[in-house]
Amino acid sequence: MGFTATSLASLSATPPLATFNMARISSAWPAMTVGNHVAIHTLGPRTRFLAELMAGDHDVRFDGEHWHPGPHGLPILEGVTAWMLGAVVEVHPIEESAVIVVAIEDGGLGPEDEALLYHERQYRKPGEMV
Amino acid sequence: MGFTATSLASLSATPPLATFNMARISSAWPAMTVGNHVAIHTLGPRTRFLAELMAGDHDVRFDGEHWHPGPHGLPILEGVTAWMLGAVVEVHPIEESAVIVVAIEDGGLGPEDEALLYHERQYRKPGEMV
Repeated sequence: MGFTATSLASLSATPPLATFNMARISSAWPAMTVGNHVAIHTLGPRTRFLAELMAGDHDVRFDGEHWHPGPHGLPILEGVTAWMLGAVVEVHPIEESAVIVVAIEDGGLGPEDEALLYHERQYRKPGEMV
Repeated sequence: MGFTATSLASLSATPPLATFNMARISSAWPAMTVGNHVAIHTLGPRTRFLAELMAGDHDVRFDGEHWHPGPHGLPILEGVTAWMLGAVVEVHPIEESAVIVVAIEDGGLGPEDEALLYHERQYRKPGEMV
């Protein structure tokens, strides 16, 4: 299972910790238990289709050749700029949502690409310096 | 007191909840107690100097005419694209950092501006669609 998170926030550098938020109605929510592992991917303009795929029909998110099995049997998406393996260390449900804290245990880099932004319901890349 | 957060993440739309992460070494950390209120500001390229000011020497962050007192006596920064009043509803310390969950209670819009990004240690604005 998988889903498109609109933000992944750094929480700590030492040890490496990050957070993301999700709706508990997500098909991926049952996997968010302490000790479980998750694969986190950062996308670029060239893998925008993965952002759309992982936000679409959850029955077909892993139909195809766009991933391969990685550590703990987790799916690693092809062509992403980076992937990280995280262990779920805290889960904080609140209302119909939850904050997930993960400890980053491993990771790797893929082909270089620009960053992928989602701003005002449109995918963009970073623009000029200000 | 104030600080520059590198990310504010939406947690829930109904009720409106958001999260941000911070280092517990921050001078603003002692204010992060449940029930306290915080003012959150979104910045644009025209208020980039506020991002730098609130990330600089904490003794001078409120020296000047760049803010006025708002609800609960909280400082509202001038010229920001939006401000929100949040009540701290959860604080989750982990290692030397913490996740802060806020319930958004009020807010207002300022002058229009583009979004301000911080990407690879540079301030940027959103670029072309991909």
